[in-house]
Formats: sequence, C-alpha cells, structure tokens
Amino acid sequence: MAKTKADVLVIGGGPAGIVAATVGKRCYPEKKFLLVRKAKEAIVPCGIPYIFGTLEESSQDVIPDEALTKAGVELVVDEVVSISRERKSCRTAGGSEIEFEKLVLALGSVPKVPGWLKGADLPGVFTVPKDKGYLDKALEYLKACERIVIVGGGFIGVEVADELRKRGKDVTIVEILPHILGLVFDEEVAVQVEGLLKERGIELRTGVGVKEIVGEERATGVLLESGETLPADAVVLCMGYRPNTSLAEEAGIKTNELGFIRVDEYMRTEDPDIFAVGDCAEKRDFLTRRPSAVMLASTACAEARIAGMNLYRLSSVKTMGGTIGIFSTCIGEVGFGAAGLTENMAKKEGFDIVVGSFSGVDKHPGSMPGAHRQFVKLIVAKESGVLLGGEVVGGASTGELVNLIGLVIQNRMTINSIVTAQIGTHPLLTAPPTAYPLIKAAEAVASKAT
Amino acid sequence: MAKTKADVLVIGGGPAGIVAATVGKRCYPEKKFLLVRKAKEAIVPCGIPYIFGTLEESSQDVIPDEALTKAGVELVVDEVVSISRERKSCRTAGGSEIEFEKLVLALGSVPKVPGWLKGADLPGVFTVPKDKGYLDKALEYLKACERIVIVGGGFIGVEVADELRKRGKDVTIVEILPHILGLVFDEEVAVQVEGLLKERGIELRTGVGVKEIVGEERATGVLLESGETLPADAVVLCMGYRPNTSLAEEAGIKTNELGFIRVDEYMRTEDPDIFAVGDCAEKRDFLTRRPSAVMLASTACAEARIAGMNLYRLSSVKTMGGTIGIFSTCIGEVGFGAAGLTENMAKKEGFDIVVGSFSGVDKHPGSMPGAHRQFVKLIVAKESGVLLGGEVVGGASTGELVNLIGLVIQNRMTINSIVTAQIGTHPLLTAPPTAYPLIKAAEAVASKAT
Repeated sequence: MAKTKADVLVIGGGPAGIVAATVGKRCYPEKKFLLVRKAKEAIVPCGIPYIFGTLEESSQDVIPDEALTKAGVELVVDEVVSISRERKSCRTAGGSEIEFEKLVLALGSVPKVPGWLKGADLPGVFTVPKDKGYLDKALEYLKACERIVIVGGGFIGVEVADELRKRGKDVTIVEILPHILGLVFDEEVAVQVEGLLKERGIELRTGVGVKEIVGEERATGVLLESGETLPADAVVLCMGYRPNTSLAEEAGIKTNELGFIRVDEYMRTEDPDIFAVGDCAEKRDFLTRRPSAVMLASTACAEARIAGMNLYRLSSVKTMGGTIGIFSTCIGEVGFGAAGLTENMAKKEGFDIVVGSFSGVDKHPGSMPGAHRQFVKLIVAKESGVLLGGEVVGGASTGELVNLIGLVIQNRMTINSIVTAQIGTHPLLTAPPTAYPLIKAAEAVASKAT
Repeated sequence: MAKTKADVLVIGGGPAGIVAATVGKRCYPEKKFLLVRKAKEAIVPCGIPYIFGTLEESSQDVIPDEALTKAGVELVVDEVVSISRERKSCRTAGGSEIEFEKLVLALGSVPKVPGWLKGADLPGVFTVPKDKGYLDKALEYLKACERIVIVGGGFIGVEVADELRKRGKDVTIVEILPHILGLVFDEEVAVQVEGLLKERGIELRTGVGVKEIVGEERATGVLLESGETLPADAVVLCMGYRPNTSLAEEAGIKTNELGFIRVDEYMRTEDPDIFAVGDCAEKRDFLTRRPSAVMLASTACAEARIAGMNLYRLSSVKTMGGTIGIFSTCIGEVGFGAAGLTENMAKKEGFDIVVGSFSGVDKHPGSMPGAHRQFVKLIVAKESGVLLGGEVVGGASTGELVNLIGLVIQNRMTINSIVTAQIGTHPLLTAPPTAYPLIKAAEAVASKAT
C-alpha cells in the first residue's frame, strides 16, 4: 500500500473543500496541504441549473484545478473509503494510505429522494447531484423530451425549470407548499416569483404533493395527491439535499439530530484535529439558534474560511456565529433575494417584529434605460430595532443589495444604522438617493415602531 | 405683504430639501411643513450628465412634486430673499413673509468658475448647474457643435464627456491632476477609467491646466498651460461646485473655513432652530476628521434624514458621524466605485495601512453570459484592522458592492468581519463564493498584516 503524509488533508473538492485548503495554505504556508476528490472534474454547484439552458454544456461549469495548484495545494483524484482517527490516516479506493495532522471533511451533500416515492427509480427520473457524469447523461436524455415535470419548487427546482423552458421545453413545477420558494420568501414576494414563472410559460401546481411517478419502462407521468396525472417525458426531482456523512459516521464522528456532522464555532468536530465544513457540517441558525438544514455554497465557503484560518491557531474573532440564509436568484431579468428571517418565519419563531417595505426603481431618474422596479421589505425586532431579515425584488444589483442586508444582520445592526446610513448612488447603477428602497423600507419600519 | 406660518420651513427643492421635509413630516406629522423652491421644476442632480446623451430631454430628469405633496408637505414656488432670525421669518421675492418654528436650509451649490479664467463668460462656455432652464439652453447650443472641450476630469466632467460622445461629438477632457478621477481613485483604477474613455473615442489631456478660453464673439478654443490650443465649438466647465450660502451669511449664520454653513452632528447650525443640510452644509471627513468639500446627493440625503428626524427631538443615535465619500459611476458597461479613503489619501494623511486587491469575475462560472471582470481593492488600518477605504471596478453590481463597503467603513468594522462574512451568491448576480473579490481582497490584506 502506497503511503503518503500530509499535514492537512482535505476530503472533498467542492467549494468548501477548495476554500478550506487554499485559505488554510495561505495562513499556514509551511504546512503540506493535500486535497482528495473523487470526481475527475469539480463542478460549480450554483452553476448546475444553468447547464440545462443558458450554458451550452457542463464543461463550461467546471472549477479549474489551478484554484488549488496555484495556491500550493496538492490535488489527488481518488476516493477516501475510510478514516482512522487513532492512526490519523485515511485509506483510498485507489489503495493509498494518507496520514494527516489535521483533517477537513468537506463531504458535501446528495439529493434527497424519499423512500416512499414509487417510480423514483424509473428511467427518465433524474435528480440534480453535483456529479458531472450523471448530469451529462441527464442532459442527453432530456434533449429528446418535450414535457418535463419538476418535483419541488425550491431554488434548484425553479432554476432548472426556467432553464429548461429557455430550451423550449414544456415545464411544470409541482410544489407541496402553498407557494413556490415559500420557505425563503413571504407570500407577497413568492407570488411575484410565481407570476413571472407563469409569464414565461411554466405551469405551476402548488399546495399539492406528488404520490408517485408513473410509467412502465420509463417515466411517463407524475400522479399528484389530488388525483391529477401530469404526463411527462421526464421527471426531475428537486426535493432538497441531505448531508453526505457516511464516511464520517463510520469513523465514529458524531452527527446531530438533522444528520449533519457536529461542529463548534471554529468548525471543529468533537475531535479537535478534525474539522467539517460545507453541506456536511452542522449549522445553527444565527437568529433562531435552532439547528438549520440550509445548504448554500456561499455559507459553505464562509465555514471553510473559518476552518482554514483556525486549523493550527484558534482565533476567537474568526468564528461562525450561526448560519444566515442569504439567497438570491434570477428569473429572466428579475432578481429575487432574501437574507435572514422572513416575516412568516420570524412570527412563527416568536419574535415581536415590525415590518416595512418600499417599492421604487433601481436606476434614477426612472426614465434611464434598463430601469427596473426595486422592492425591499425589512423585518425588524421591535424591542431592539435589530434587523432580522430582508427581501428584495429588483434588477442586476439584487445580489449585492441582499449581501448588504446580510451584513447588517450579521453585525446585529439596528434600523437606526440604516436610516442614518450614507450610501453612494448613481443613475445607471442604483436607486435614487431620495428614494433608496432599503432606506425607505427602514423609515417605514421606524414610523411603525414609534 | 402676504403672511404665512409654517411650523417647519425648508428652503431648497433639491434632494436634501425634499428628504428633510418628507422625513421630518413622517416623524412629526402634527407639524405643518412648507418647502419653498425657486425653480418651477426640480431636477435630479445625478441625472444631469445623462440629459447630454442617454436621455432625450431634460424633462425626463425632473423630480415629481408628488414626492412632496403626497407626503403632506406644502410646496411654494418662490425665492427666499432674506431670513430674519429674530423674527423667525423669511421674505420672498414674490412678496410673502413666512414665519417658522424650525428652518431647514437646503440651499445647494453652484458651479465654481475661477475668477482668473479669461474667456469664461464667452458665449459657448457652459457650466453644469442644477438649473433646467440653463441646461436646456446649453443643450440647444451644443446640438450644433462638433468639438467640445470639457474642463475638469471629475465625475461630472467624465460623465458629461461620455454622454456627449454618445451623441457623436468630438470630446476632449482637460484635467490638471495627473489622472482623470484622480481624487477618488488610486492610479491603478484611474488608468482603467482613462483607458476606457480613450477606447470610447474621448481625447484626454491630463496633468495640464487651462490658461484661458479663446474666442472673439464666442468660444473657439481652449489654451492650455502647455501652450497647446484645443479648438472647440463649445466648452463645458466642470471645475467643481461651491456651497450656495449667501442667504445664510446675510442672516449672520456662520460658515466654516471652506465656506460651508457650520453644523453639528444633528445638522443644526449655531442657531438650534435652524438646520442646514446638503451641499451648503459643513462636512467633516469620517476618517481624517478634517473639513471636507465632498458634495454628493447621497450624503446630502443622509444629512437631510438626520435633520428631519432631529427637528423637535434630538436622538443621540441618529447623528452624522462625518462624511464618507461613497461614489460610483459607469462608463459604457463598466462600473467604477469607491468608498472612504484611497491608498494615496490614507498615506498622505498619515495612516499606517495595509492594502490588498483581487481581480475576479462578477458572475460564475465565468462562462455565464454578460460576465464582467470585478476588481476590488481594500485599504485597511494596520493597527486595528479597521477598513478605511475600498475601490471597485465591475459590472452592474458595482454600485451596491461599493455601498456594502461603505457600510463596513461607517460601522468601523474590521477586516475580520469581511473574511468571516457570510454572503449570498448566484451565477447571474454575483461573483463566485470561492473567489468573491471583496473577500479575496480582505484575505490578501490579512496575509500581509500577519
């Protein structure tokens, strides 16, 4: 058996693995970093929906290996099959043993397929894993399909649906919740998403579950709980992801009640030499303090940076204080984004809140070409004035505006810090200074709070 | 003489006046707010350069009066000609006397034209005031002109030049500093601005002053200090603005060494019942603590909100802690933005700094349509890690990304708060989570600081 020794061994080549390795190497340049990844090519997870439409092929959605090699991280394409905590080493499918001082688990997640879903194993039924080979096969199959049913109206479902529609497919989304993206947006925003999807020719079935996937030799339809059968040439299951933790569990590393690898604020497992980051690692909601199952590449990368920086020297100011779901997506020219809690979630959780919103325009004057409506809603704790959440509908600046809101939440800033904020404005890039929706929404909150 | 009584009288109908009046009315709905404005129509100041190209006419750049009337603010079109502090009243050119409890001066600014500049009064020489009538005449004159010289390569000069170029004019910018936008950007960014302007067919003369404007009956050229004469059918002077304070000075209200009306953190003048906001009001730099002459509609609106909220009840958490210059502009598809201090300014001022930068892409994967290079540079105080400044070159999200950087500066956050930040990312809206330029630039700073 070939034996290697790394100071830091990272298992997993997705965003979290890459960032943990490269940030770690930057902080501890004297250490030898080795990243083991099963896939020959690593895929950009957020970009996957776009290989179904906008991009021409999955090869346009590959993370270049130079991200690692340029940073001085050694890359091994192989599969780790077991971890020995006692011997501080891993074994691979290729027959190697790799010893480590520190281990980072960036094992990712895999699509959820409920055991009760009859027909899920029929040909023509696909999930959306982070696996280029699988996705290429799915793309090939879908080429010949006209009618496609997407099960699940979360971000992946919506994005895959919209992309398939761009290629002229006949697409229907089935969502068991009352609204598409209903976990992320309050109803007033979710209905805007729904309106836009319908406008683009996508059929929606909301508030209804899927009973089974019908078909003999291949999927030919989806039977809903309402009794309706949607004819389909193919079915894409977008029913969420579960953490990929079997390797860790077999090594006796503890997981939490939601199945994620337990970690502390430094992203260490109970074993101080083993870290876990990204979709496989435990998350606690920044605001509700409850275990969270929100998986985002951006959060994963924040965890990975924190792990990388703390590998050999803990820093009490470089810690993960909890997950803030910060999301954005784009349907056509319209950006949708959210950070923190929705009004609905905040109320359910028991926060005493005040909400305010404003609808303006994202360029000024509104006569500027390409001007787009911009809507901002803020959810604020009544007692402290601390911002708990925000939702945005707008144009191309939606992503960064939501990031700004996320930063306010993360730093526990109050509504005062928004109403007194100095911002920059420009006719072609932002809303007008006199009616900047973020600030006007904060003013609306302030009016109600006093 | 007609006599009126307002509780709060606002003089000036630009962004600062409108915001002071409307925010004040929101906070004190029982009070009567009256806004007096000289111009029949108020113009959006940031939009003015765009009436020279992108927009068809100045009427597309007008602030609708409903902004005021809907908020319950009474609008009077008239000119205030004197203020009596003793009688707490103003007189207008229209022959009215208006009494007030509280007065807000939002007097704005006027273009600077140096007294020594011979030929500045020739026909065909224009400035860029916030005056629709004047601008309409200038636009009419420029229609027939081919060769136009812009004196001054600040934001207004650059934007007016680029817009005139869009209409096919032959445009040259003359700037006395070594670089266009040299006060706002470090050299590495300024040269990018210059390259882009040249690419778009604009001629540049940097590092050279203007001696005089030549011409007999009308301007026919600009004589530079180098001896070169640039032929010109028209000249646009973009040499900055000075606060419009004569009305205040005549009423005995004190101004500072730069000619701005003295105010405190609540935006009160020395007279606690008289506030001043916007371009006419004193500014102190947030970081250097020196008097500042930076005039921005966005800063003006922040001052106006603070004044409006503090009119009758002071709030120690709603104060102006100093001006942070937060700028953005757009040349073609490229956005340029800056917040806080440049590296150059920080060094001159005596800060011990560390800088870091990163150049990536604003969509991910980079193969996404419309992907644009995104460059971020950060300037950080070495001792504390507090962010002092940032510069961005990018696509449509530049404006909000710079606002996010501005928020970090305003809240005196450290580089740690960026390297541990959770952000949201999306293929069509933001940079990749693994290589988000803001965070990578912060990492570059962190590498050097340790």
